[in-house]
Amino acid sequence: MSARTEATAFAPGTVANCAVGFDVLGHSLAGPGDRVTVRWNELGTVRIVAIHGTETALPLDAERNTAGRALLALLPHAPKGRGFDVSIDKGIALGSGMGGSAASAVAAVVAANALLATPLDTATLYAATMQGEAAASGAAHGDNTGPALLGGLVIATRAGAPVRVAVPDWLHIGLVRPHFALETRTSRAALAGSYELHEFVTQSEGLALVLAGCFHGDPQLLRRGLRDVLVEPRRAPLIPGFAGVKQAALDSGALGASIAGGGPSVFGWFESAAAAAQGTRAMQQAFAQAGLPSSALVSPVNGPAAAVLP
Amino acid sequence: MSARTEATAFAPGTVANCAVGFDVLGHSLAGPGDRVTVRWNELGTVRIVAIHGTETALPLDAERNTAGRALLALLPHAPKGRGFDVSIDKGIALGSGMGGSAASAVAAVVAANALLATPLDTATLYAATMQGEAAASGAAHGDNTGPALLGGLVIATRAGAPVRVAVPDWLHIGLVRPHFALETRTSRAALAGSYELHEFVTQSEGLALVLAGCFHGDPQLLRRGLRDVLVEPRRAPLIPGFAGVKQAALDSGALGASIAGGGPSVFGWFESAAAAAQGTRAMQQAFAQAGLPSSALVSPVNGPAAAVLP
Repeated sequence: MSARTEATAFAPGTVANCAVGFDVLGHSLAGPGDRVTVRWNELGTVRIVAIHGTETALPLDAERNTAGRALLALLPHAPKGRGFDVSIDKGIALGSGMGGSAASAVAAVVAANALLATPLDTATLYAATMQGEAAASGAAHGDNTGPALLGGLVIATRAGAPVRVAVPDWLHIGLVRPHFALETRTSRAALAGSYELHEFVTQSEGLALVLAGCFHGDPQLLRRGLRDVLVEPRRAPLIPGFAGVKQAALDSGALGASIAGGGPSVFGWFESAAAAAQGTRAMQQAFAQAGLPSSALVSPVNGPAAAVLP
Repeated sequence: MSARTEATAFAPGTVANCAVGFDVLGHSLAGPGDRVTVRWNELGTVRIVAIHGTETALPLDAERNTAGRALLALLPHAPKGRGFDVSIDKGIALGSGMGGSAASAVAAVVAANALLATPLDTATLYAATMQGEAAASGAAHGDNTGPALLGGLVIATRAGAPVRVAVPDWLHIGLVRPHFALETRTSRAALAGSYELHEFVTQSEGLALVLAGCFHGDPQLLRRGLRDVLVEPRRAPLIPGFAGVKQAALDSGALGASIAGGGPSVFGWFESAAAAAQGTRAMQQAFAQAGLPSSALVSPVNGPAAAVLP
């Protein structure tokens, strides 16, 4: 058994969906993230002992807390009689569309894994993080936890380990978060109802072009593929000024622009960090015209992975 | 203007959909194909002057003939007053799910292109072939004509040029055609109705894994991704013995198996030509148990492109 009794891990923010990969694609962000410290307890259960860095009251009940639920899934791998005490330091604003709940779940399992005598494989850690997401949103999706765990652009599989996709170094995201919260549950409710096959065909074409563009490092393929005909039209009404913000990104040279995760953040993918910075300024102006102050972030799409802190 | 007055082109058979890419992915086959000879006429129109190699009566009316319709789309690029006389030599059985109509359309435009003083770009030729498909099936899809035109595995885009995807050399298809015809229109009618978002998500994951598997040359990713939850369940009842044939392929080590195009052919993807040959034998036995004689073909997934014949 590991002699370690406490570990702290960092997990980055993430952007899910990426226009063409609803519940399937996501990538990590350089910058904001959550820190979670996990200590052994002798109670055989999971306790949330502290939550810092947020003014929102998050559930202290482990079953209902995203990090707590993820760690409950790892409990069978802990020595008999032992459990986890968890301290969460939120660095990602809730409801920002930057994968705040996922970052807590991922940082928790990566920290807990460092306590185990025999580290668990990626698929097991990932499955636990999806349980955490189920606590947060009611759906066990992995398109935020997969990229937070592996880093970079990731295919979030329903089973087995998620799969990292090669991404050109020049590809940057410009992400703009308007200052209002949109609940994940609300955002998902907008997707209720049935869909037409032709919507899926067009969306699949976009997904295929974006993946080919990433593998080949071809911005023209990204430009052809990076558009969302499936989810964006149904969610755009939830974000004041969305059309103008998206157009501002495209007018600034974005390869494509859409809603980040479940929103309300809006992103563009750009051919350089400088282009992304210029694009975010234009996007922020457009949000301002809709009466919304906002924050902006520029990151490589090939962002960092979660890691245990020294 | 080109001095050439006649050209003959070959276009290969193709398998569309590839389990995860309905109307988006397809690949070409080494072996069967159609030959089309195009000559200038002085009538300013398109005439189908001969059709060989099939016992089925194909339309001689250019508007309703797949090669004829494709060439009508190229007519604005011909010198004023000139048109195309077309002779078609069918090498692909109609209704076999091997892209017979697409091969005729592609061979026709490739031959006609060889007559033009200034060759047209891929996107223009491809758009013309999709018009040909519209004549055959009522829908302007390019998942057979794209791969017949470019060769190999292809993303069939709705607009612009289709995109070729890198494929490992070891990847082979085992394709088994039961001896009964299934009309493309019948096969498409089985897809009527609405779809649930979760079906799209699972299917998108498969598409992403298959593309990643092709790019990385990783058979395990192909094995995880190559399954069709969207279209196959709706079309399988049209193919007697389908479940047993699919299982026979999987039991023989196929990375995945599903319906080829709109059917009735069934395919598996295998890690070598030898494995594909063994798999097709098992698949043929399973069709025989369902009372259906069949033919089999093994080909690299990275099959040939259409070409002008010397």
